[in-house]
Amino acid sequence: MQDKKKTTIVLFSGDYDKAMAAYIIANGAAAYDHEVTIFHTFWGLNALRKDSQVPVKKNFLEKMFGKLMPRGTDKMGISKMNYLGMGPKMIKRVMKKHNAMPLPQLVDMAQEQDVKLIACTMTMDLLGLQKKELLDEIEYGGVAAYVGEAEEGNISLFI
Amino acid sequence: MQDKKKTTIVLFSGDYDKAMAAYIIANGAAAYDHEVTIFHTFWGLNALRKDSQVPVKKNFLEKMFGKLMPRGTDKMGISKMNYLGMGPKMIKRVMKKHNAMPLPQLVDMAQEQDVKLIACTMTMDLLGLQKKELLDEIEYGGVAAYVGEAEEGNISLFI
Amino acid sequence: MQDKKKTTIVLFSGDYDKAMAAYIIANGAAAYDHEVTIFHTFWGLNALRKDSQVPVKKNFLEKMFGKLMPRGTDKMGISKMNYLGMGPKMIKRVMKKHNAMPLPQLVDMAQEQDVKLIACTMTMDLLGLQKKELLDEIEYGGVAAYVGEAEEGNISLFI
Repeated sequence: MQDKKKTTIVLFSGDYDKAMAAYIIANGAAAYDHEVTIFHTFWGLNALRKDSQVPVKKNFLEKMFGKLMPRGTDKMGISKMNYLGMGPKMIKRVMKKHNAMPLPQLVDMAQEQDVKLIACTMTMDLLGLQKKELLDEIEYGGVAAYVGEAEEGNISLFI
Repeated sequence: MQDKKKTTIVLFSGDYDKAMAAYIIANGAAAYDHEVTIFHTFWGLNALRKDSQVPVKKNFLEKMFGKLMPRGTDKMGISKMNYLGMGPKMIKRVMKKHNAMPLPQLVDMAQEQDVKLIACTMTMDLLGLQKKELLDEIEYGGVAAYVGEAEEGNISLFI
Repeated sequence: MQDKKKTTIVLFSGDYDKAMAAYIIANGAAAYDHEVTIFHTFWGLNALRKDSQVPVKKNFLEKMFGKLMPRGTDKMGISKMNYLGMGPKMIKRVMKKHNAMPLPQLVDMAQEQDVKLIACTMTMDLLGLQKKELLDEIEYGGVAAYVGEAEEGNISLFI
């Protein structure tokens, strides 16, 4: 019996378009029967935030990060927004027109396909994000978890 | 007989310097006898655009994307332009001084070395880019094509 | 006897947070007994600059690059600085509060763990950086060196 192929993605970026690319590749690889893991670190953690405010205790800096960072995928900016003079709205309008799946659905789909979503605990600590602010049914881990997943993999990407 | 080694690059970025890095690695790997594929998606598709305007029918949003995005490699901006207070012109002047190969030639060289250039059909659809606006002798595919190439590879990068 | 696992990272970015991610992954992989290489190219070379000025002969453009680019890891900006309305100072304050290791120490630790740090000679040439401006005990190489390291690797990333 042959082992399943494996795809491991580090999602570092908090840009809507880059997160989309990450989740499209993840869902594609899962559809081709890969075992897929997305390790969310730094700004990529925002893809896992619940879109409503969750009441938690935070210190001043943590509150500031919490306010400044987008709450969930739907509020992320895009990597080329200023350069192209257009906002995420324009991208979303185009996507809707073409029946392309928006990011929140791509995340749902990944969870349905058993893509393993890991939140980087070191960054959560730094940015003051707490478990109840993030999506349910995700996993938690540090760089060791990442290395363990990625070292056996076929495709490894940093996005 | 041993199989050829394989390098697969996702070019997501539309920055001149990042596209340069992608094509330098691709050409280097090809010179060391790798089978190389560059999968151009999102803003990376601009590296495959013809530098002249091609008359095609587009709707309003598609026309806007067409106008706002750079037509071909020679018109791309660089990722650190504002930060360093200098434009792609400065980088190109330095490259010329050192006889470094500019991006359009790197793309030509990749085609001569049989690097497989794939345009992501999903993004073409989203941004309203049509085949005749892109370079000749490239291939077309979606995430399935990408996963198929990358899963057997030795080096896989997202740029 | 089984070969050691191998991680190869291209550090292209000159952002503080991205360089941190690169060095955290590198140190993590080294701790799990991987052979680790970081190939520093383009703006990533700045992570290897000494933090004091080194007197070397340069032409006008080289001097300009030298002045505009950060001298060492401690002076790098972060990738989302403007977007989040906060500078590297805020990130560093948070890191200090959480006893997270700042970038210069992460680089030291990598050297202690025998992570191979390679400076891309082609970019050094382009940007006019000379060996004595960079950290001691690093290696030098071009794309051939990179391909040679990465093609045998388990994890390969472009950051």
